[in-house]
Amino acid sequence: MRVDGVAWRSIAADGPHAVRVIDQTRLPFAFATLRLESIGEVARAIRSMQVRGAPLIGVAAAYGVALAMQRDAGDTALADAHAALLATRPTAVNLRWALARMRSAMQPLPPAARAEAAWHEAGCVAEEDVAINRALGRHGAGPIAAAYARTRRPVHVLTHCNAGWIATVDYGTALSAVYQAHDAGVPVHVWVDETRPRNQGLLTAWELAAHGVPHTLIADNAGGHLMQRGEVDLVIVGADRVSRGGDVCNKIGTYLKALAAFDNGVPFYAAVPSPTIDWELADALREIPIEERAADEVRLVSGRDGSGRPAQVALADDATAVANPAFDVTPARLVTGIVTERGIAAPAELARLFAPARAAA
Amino acid sequence: MRVDGVAWRSIAADGPHAVRVIDQTRLPFAFATLRLESIGEVARAIRSMQVRGAPLIGVAAAYGVALAMQRDAGDTALADAHAALLATRPTAVNLRWALARMRSAMQPLPPAARAEAAWHEAGCVAEEDVAINRALGRHGAGPIAAAYARTRRPVHVLTHCNAGWIATVDYGTALSAVYQAHDAGVPVHVWVDETRPRNQGLLTAWELAAHGVPHTLIADNAGGHLMQRGEVDLVIVGADRVSRGGDVCNKIGTYLKALAAFDNGVPFYAAVPSPTIDWELADALREIPIEERAADEVRLVSGRDGSGRPAQVALADDATAVANPAFDVTPARLVTGIVTERGIAAPAELARLFAPARAAA
Repeated sequence: MRVDGVAWRSIAADGPHAVRVIDQTRLPFAFATLRLESIGEVARAIRSMQVRGAPLIGVAAAYGVALAMQRDAGDTALADAHAALLATRPTAVNLRWALARMRSAMQPLPPAARAEAAWHEAGCVAEEDVAINRALGRHGAGPIAAAYARTRRPVHVLTHCNAGWIATVDYGTALSAVYQAHDAGVPVHVWVDETRPRNQGLLTAWELAAHGVPHTLIADNAGGHLMQRGEVDLVIVGADRVSRGGDVCNKIGTYLKALAAFDNGVPFYAAVPSPTIDWELADALREIPIEERAADEVRLVSGRDGSGRPAQVALADDATAVANPAFDVTPARLVTGIVTERGIAAPAELARLFAPARAAA
Repeated sequence: MRVDGVAWRSIAADGPHAVRVIDQTRLPFAFATLRLESIGEVARAIRSMQVRGAPLIGVAAAYGVALAMQRDAGDTALADAHAALLATRPTAVNLRWALARMRSAMQPLPPAARAEAAWHEAGCVAEEDVAINRALGRHGAGPIAAAYARTRRPVHVLTHCNAGWIATVDYGTALSAVYQAHDAGVPVHVWVDETRPRNQGLLTAWELAAHGVPHTLIADNAGGHLMQRGEVDLVIVGADRVSRGGDVCNKIGTYLKALAAFDNGVPFYAAVPSPTIDWELADALREIPIEERAADEVRLVSGRDGSGRPAQVALADDATAVANPAFDVTPARLVTGIVTERGIAAPAELARLFAPARAAA
């Protein structure tokens, strides 16, 4: 996608020994990139959420393995790289998937061949992410276009967090559907949840503004009311992990929007590349580890000061106890469909949609 | 209640020609009071939310009428005062109730007697608010004590917005129940929703800290997850207007918490003084005007800067469209009970609880 007219991906090789990423902790208040030259730098960038979004985390981790292999391609180094990156974030499954894929590709090779092969494999993971997200967005644009065909008025989509191109290598997941509907001429307007505490909704607003998609920023509290008033045609979010039965683990607060959608007969979709589906997972509510992040994410809010410079304010002092669970689980019973690169499946049909691939794997 | 060991009410006469209020737009980052000497100053304080909370707005409006009568007690001035104050906030019904009461008390009197009578009547409205909130808190403490009796572990209460003593003249509504349970020795811990965009949860945290009640600040997005995990025993909120059938209009986002409570079998209570009940209201979702407030409430966040001084940051620029509905409606089907000064009623029983009073009125 484009930033100020220049084509960007959220991650790309920067010469043969580094990757360049957008520092997402500084968006939308500043656009800056980071050059990551070691697995340690990659791990730190993931942990701090300079690199964020389940699909992008997976790709970044793949490059992290490649950077590690360039320094030491032995079996111990491979195991260490896998472990170090896996520990950065517990909830998103793309990380585990990408690391398993990298390890499977490296293990049969002699150490001397691993660095080059890892770099190649990470590039493949990145390219596949782009292709998958383009395909799933094409499917996800379907319900948006169908709503327009039915109502002949702009389609109001509500989204939570950022499932846009910067959460992936390119295109995004939920926003890939929005972009493709918009680009096909369907009039679409997006209600953008702020998504406290990290305010990733501001990233979504930034993306949508850059692409020219009409949108309105709202507090996380407002979505239910808008649905009650008939002002939301459908909800589309991304996800950090989806169970084989269609439970959706996504940014904290997603469950509340899914409840409101269900209560008001508003379709609720999660758009995910297949690496976000955890086929081993039966009961998402019990089995997914929910990351508890730092209290300062709630205590501090980033924005711009009166002079337009990036600044922070503290809402609460250190004496105030804070809880900051980063994700929640939306049970499949509240989910209308899972949007994937193979099409849209009702939760109960998700496994069938991927049955041939899973049998082949 | 006490601030730094000094007993305070949120509003009080300050000599015979003014009232003093706490400037709630500066809390919790600064504690400052305002002296209001005219109806215009009262109206401005209500509109700007320097004075906020449905019960307190009603009392402030009563004093506003009294201040108006001190300048001009004619029929036109009385009608103008009523209209000007009624226009300040459209959603809370206490405002309408208090103004109707003041007008009914003034109209039979000769203008020369109105100023003194209005001052007296406003004082009565304030005193009744204190008595009502003390009584409803005693009833509201019941379910908290019952949960403790059942579990013998600290009772986790979730609340949204600020329904504490500063939202009333004293005691509060939802927090009156918490304070009285706490004071009776029931171990209680409160999950405090941040309540974007105005972050009234910070007022709640400030109140609870001052009273020594254990509490944890959370993002508005987190409550559903906590309920799924069994970490919430009951939800208690205040309200801006309750229909005769028990629909609860309260701060935006309340509906989402009620949905989550219902989905997880967590009891959901609204604690309200009877002037918050709109007996004329049948269908809250259709009939209550929902105030749309300024976009800057979403765009700007107040806190402290690095030096501890009150400061603001902008999350979005003026080019970003914002919607800011201030309230939503929780349908009675999601409400376990309405806590009033007469006791707790299931929504369908609310009218019966007040039948004698309504017949007498």
